Amino acid sequence: MSGKPILPLIEYDAASAEVRAVYDDIMATRKSDWVNNFWKVLAHDPAHLKRTWESLKEIMGPGALDPLTKELIYIAVSATNGCEYCTYSHTASARAKGMTDTQLTELLAVVGKANETNRLANALRPPVDAQFQPPD
Amino acid sequence: MSGKPILPLIEYDAASAEVRAVYDDIMATRKSDWVNNFWKVLAHDPAHLKRTWESLKEIMGPGALDPLTKELIYIAVSATNGCEYCTYSHTASARAKGMTDTQLTELLAVVGKANETNRLANALRPPVDAQFQPPD
Amino acid sequence: MSGKPILPLIEYDAASAEVRAVYDDIMATRKSDWVNNFWKVLAHDPAHLKRTWESLKEIMGPGALDPLTKELIYIAVSATNGCEYCTYSHTASARAKGMTDTQLTELLAVVGKANETNRLANALRPPVDAQFQPPD
Amino acid sequence: MSGKPILPLIEYDAASAEVRAVYDDIMATRKSDWVNNFWKVLAHDPAHLKRTWESLKEIMGPGALDPLTKELIYIAVSATNGCEYCTYSHTASARAKGMTDTQLTELLAVVGKANETNRLANALRPPVDAQFQPPD
Amino acid sequence: MSGKPILPLIEYDAASAEVRAVYDDIMATRKSDWVNNFWKVLAHDPAHLKRTWESLKEIMGPGALDPLTKELIYIAVSATNGCEYCTYSHTASARAKGMTDTQLTELLAVVGKANETNRLANALRPPVDAQFQPPD
Amino acid sequence: MSGKPILPLIEYDAASAEVRAVYDDIMATRKSDWVNNFWKVLAHDPAHLKRTWESLKEIMGPGALDPLTKELIYIAVSATNGCEYCTYSHTASARAKGMTDTQLTELLAVVGKANETNRLANALRPPVDAQFQPPD
Repeated sequence: MSGKPILPLIEYDAASAEVRAVYDDIMATRKSDWVNNFWKVLAHDPAHLKRTWESLKEIMGPGALDPLTKELIYIAVSATNGCEYCTYSHTASARAKGMTDTQLTELLAVVGKANETNRLANALRPPVDAQFQPPD
Repeated sequence: MSGKPILPLIEYDAASAEVRAVYDDIMATRKSDWVNNFWKVLAHDPAHLKRTWESLKEIMGPGALDPLTKELIYIAVSATNGCEYCTYSHTASARAKGMTDTQLTELLAVVGKANETNRLANALRPPVDAQFQPPD
Repeated sequence: MSGKPILPLIEYDAASAEVRAVYDDIMATRKSDWVNNFWKVLAHDPAHLKRTWESLKEIMGPGALDPLTKELIYIAVSATNGCEYCTYSHTASARAKGMTDTQLTELLAVVGKANETNRLANALRPPVDAQFQPPD
Repeated sequence: MSGKPILPLIEYDAASAEVRAVYDDIMATRKSDWVNNFWKVLAHDPAHLKRTWESLKEIMGPGALDPLTKELIYIAVSATNGCEYCTYSHTASARAKGMTDTQLTELLAVVGKANETNRLANALRPPVDAQFQPPD
Repeated sequence: MSGKPILPLIEYDAASAEVRAVYDDIMATRKSDWVNNFWKVLAHDPAHLKRTWESLKEIMGPGALDPLTKELIYIAVSATNGCEYCTYSHTASARAKGMTDTQLTELLAVVGKANETNRLANALRPPVDAQFQPPD
Repeated sequence: MSGKPILPLIEYDAASAEVRAVYDDIMATRKSDWVNNFWKVLAHDPAHLKRTWESLKEIMGPGALDPLTKELIYIAVSATNGCEYCTYSHTASARAKGMTDTQLTELLAVVGKANETNRLANALRPPVDAQFQPPD
């Protein structure tokens, strides 16, 4: 990163009550005592901060897919898009949820292969097979 | 799809022995009696066809991640890149491996959110937190 | 589009009360009598449907930027990502909000130029000038 | 940025007359006394430098869209593509043209949401509604 | 392609003198008697049409790289971005300039592999080796 | 690059026999006495390391396209995707294979223009001309 964040980090002590409430929920949800920088730059727009955090919390929680699988998917998208911050943060989150190095390297093999074959299909334009049509 | 494939499909009957061997392995591995169009356009370069299929077979098989999880990751990448063919083919593959509609919609919620927050981080450039540094 | 939607469209008559409430709000907000297909595929996950619609409504409404400017930005992103559905739907929305053809073509000139210079910078890696650092 | 620029910066004093003429026009147009590094790496190809600068000047000037709106669009594309240099430079330009922090955070909310819904549409493939077809 | 072009095609007979001059130059440069649809949609903004065509003509002509190599690069970028129109048009152009099917399949093998390893590097973040630093 | 690699570099002395065999082949193929960091992070998955290196060696060697042209294509893709590591490493490789600065700047002019016109086509959706359909 060659420079300062585009908007300054808003630390807890300097935050409004509305922002602090989100920070508190982040820490309570994660059972941790700190808030990462992503939220501290987003805090310049408290409504957007709250909306983003609450939807993320809802989406990343347990459901038909377990939280670790969801972190793996997050890494896959972040690597595809080349987002440095997201790669570091979600790899750390996945490790905290139990991801092993072998799971990470298998994940990346799939991500690499998907990015490769996506372009082969884009360039060669095979028609979608009738067998791949979704069921009614 | 507004046109013909960029290279014509090579059907089994018209394929060389080298290409047929790959088609046979695809069908044997999948326990199916047909080969999808992606391979039929790739078959114009038999060495590339063989290499792509064999690495894909190795990567998508069982390991530290199960085959369904790998298909979910493939869908995540294909949706991020906007590859139409890959979206249809890997959604069909994931369904064949047991993906439910609820798993699909949860997957897409994560994919959408990751694509959103990737851009917020790209635009606001928060420094990577020391806590996210990988272990030695 | 070469095939069916990945999940079938859920029409109003077949929708649950929870989904209908979102459809009703979409139509009321837009003062229209129909719901577009994007929402009808998303409706398979009612919580995701509701969350996506409500955040979109909040984000796209008037604020420090007017709603037409926001639609122009949406087109810019959709063209950059190559999303066909989004290009058609947001161009139509922008026109409904008053976008002229001249505004559209000026927008696209900027989008094209930004996509060009983004890659020149990616490839040549000029250091970020001190003068571009954000203020404290 | 982990390294040197791919091609060395060409400073004014070392520049050819052809390059200096472009640098002079950049400074005159912007009423400033310095040239940013993007142009100094592009200057290795004087014809490309001149063409890129002149088209950018023409495109980013006032028209049916005002210059600030055009800078917002530039930021939207740069964040979507993840171009670090462009994010810093065009955020600085937008601020110089009067962009407030609130306009920036609203812009980013739209950019994030567009990147999200683009992928939902890519993955679910809703047919384009007849109502969204362009007028004749 | 599921719909009409976003702006109607401007045919030669309906074009202004300014647009016809560009169309004439396209046909003269290519020694052909027709203009492809890309230019017919761009013609709604005659200044942008002229600027885009003239810079493209200058860039794609012979130089330190031959015109066929430049078409191969154009295909590589278009496949990476997933642009359907550009894939069809530039594959046709490359064939008209002598590209063989074997050159095409070799090109795509490189494009696929680059898209794969780009993501492995994005995800694993190896430091740039000192040996790769550009010369002074 | 703001941090450590996601997985630690595996140096030659600490590598397994399987990994060393790949490192040895990389150095022998390139007639060099060092291995770049990309392979040292990939070495955590020896099978993936071997597969990736061997396919890359096969793809990037001489064929219907010469090795320098293949490196140019690699740079084009890496710049389009914004991969910093790949940009530095493949620009260095291309230079080692004889790329001149003029070839590089011509390459980038094409890459920039393709990224621009890809988005104009994405946004304006011209139908693919019948003349661009591939031959049977």
